[in-house]
Amino acid sequence: MTKQKRTVFYLSDRTGITAETLGHSLLTQFDGIEWETINVPFLDDLEKAKAVLMQINQAAGRDGYRPLVFSTLLKPEILSVIKQANCRVYDFFETFTHPVEEELHQSSVRKAGRSHGVEHHPSYFKRIAAINYVLAHDDGVNPKHLAEADIVLTGVSRSGKTPTCLYLGLQYGIAAANYPLTPDDMPVMRLPDVLENVKSKLFGLTLIPEQLHFIRQERRPDSQYASLAQCQREIQWQESLFRQCNIPYLDTTRISIEEISAIILNRCGLKRRLYG
Amino acid sequence: MTKQKRTVFYLSDRTGITAETLGHSLLTQFDGIEWETINVPFLDDLEKAKAVLMQINQAAGRDGYRPLVFSTLLKPEILSVIKQANCRVYDFFETFTHPVEEELHQSSVRKAGRSHGVEHHPSYFKRIAAINYVLAHDDGVNPKHLAEADIVLTGVSRSGKTPTCLYLGLQYGIAAANYPLTPDDMPVMRLPDVLENVKSKLFGLTLIPEQLHFIRQERRPDSQYASLAQCQREIQWQESLFRQCNIPYLDTTRISIEEISAIILNRCGLKRRLYG
Repeated sequence: MTKQKRTVFYLSDRTGITAETLGHSLLTQFDGIEWETINVPFLDDLEKAKAVLMQINQAAGRDGYRPLVFSTLLKPEILSVIKQANCRVYDFFETFTHPVEEELHQSSVRKAGRSHGVEHHPSYFKRIAAINYVLAHDDGVNPKHLAEADIVLTGVSRSGKTPTCLYLGLQYGIAAANYPLTPDDMPVMRLPDVLENVKSKLFGLTLIPEQLHFIRQERRPDSQYASLAQCQREIQWQESLFRQCNIPYLDTTRISIEEISAIILNRCGLKRRLYG
Repeated sequence: MTKQKRTVFYLSDRTGITAETLGHSLLTQFDGIEWETINVPFLDDLEKAKAVLMQINQAAGRDGYRPLVFSTLLKPEILSVIKQANCRVYDFFETFTHPVEEELHQSSVRKAGRSHGVEHHPSYFKRIAAINYVLAHDDGVNPKHLAEADIVLTGVSRSGKTPTCLYLGLQYGIAAANYPLTPDDMPVMRLPDVLENVKSKLFGLTLIPEQLHFIRQERRPDSQYASLAQCQREIQWQESLFRQCNIPYLDTTRISIEEISAIILNRCGLKRRLYG
């Protein structure tokens, strides 16, 4: 049986980040449909809206099903153009704004770009400072400054330390350092000396040896470094070490950087430092 | 007049990213309220739900207003515990799942963690590859490989190139390089040689001199580098250069990294390479 093919539009006055996040999380709850995704950010005048109307109608004709449209359009006149198309519209502001107004006993301002728009200075600097910290403390660089970190991720090569640190910095403003465990550390079952001093900030990343092997193959195909046997040895060693030293750790096999980051924050009781 | 103080809860089975995105974008539409924010990710059993119920009731008592609760809870039994609290619940799945089911003529699977959960291999590798590319091509490093970039950001020191490149890599899987413009380039009104070859991929970042001054002061207080006069000279020079060379550019003063990134994608016609 071939999959049903349908088109989904994400429409927004501004970046479209909210519309996409919400629509995507709904559509992942439905199986067996192949989605063609069309993003239309900065949809802020009637001419553009008319062009999108035609694009929606074309997709409806091509697919044989009307498209789904997730929108965070704030201007009612733009939304009403879109509603003339052959589609099903789910508008987040239309749906929730009135119920929230009701609860707060006040009208919404209905201004675009408030969510991701103006960045306030303190938050901007916290974010930049966190990113700079992450970049300056990646992969064991500047180990003397580890004490200033909010958290120190550790694990063997390609266990996902760098992308997770960057995400923690960018998204949450967390000063995340990372320090590698290497085969040189393996003869003994103890932490590298520099990590002993920051033990309370350590968090381990692990994954199944098969996935580590797969990831390392991309980097250095058919090397000793990438061999399954080597990956098994390193993973087995690091997991024993984490347990012996009481370092909290997470198996990241098949979970995304977003989720890894949220789990780490939650487990370590860290508070995000940014909002917006 | 003192601001009304109210508490908002973001509740989720998983990371809470969707609930926060929804709630935050709605609440930014209301002025004059001071929000106390409480995130509860991984709310996945009845014991935790009962604890949150008590926490909500305490906040209601303290504030004198019932809290707002934005939720993406998939388990009905957890949601019904929360609904017993003194609060107003806006549940995202409850609101939209049925209308989407109706349109698709099929039932949702109602499984948690689908949105940010399992990361598919191709997408995971694209993301890691993009991040590695960004890190290996930050601040003019490896200029020989600029031709492989999807985009090359340029601008004077502290114009926001690095965080924007990282965001483009992490969030969209875009191979974004950046190359600095320096005072050494200023005597002539032409691009550094290495940029001439990638002119079609260039995008300039600029900002008002006052903000650049403020940002540089954080880095090297009271230096020549940070002086307002120097910032004015560099900004004036780079904006003339961008115009003369027909390089698209953006004034990033007071806009967030999310928005800068979305605008760049849109203006350059770049497609995001990641979904989820």
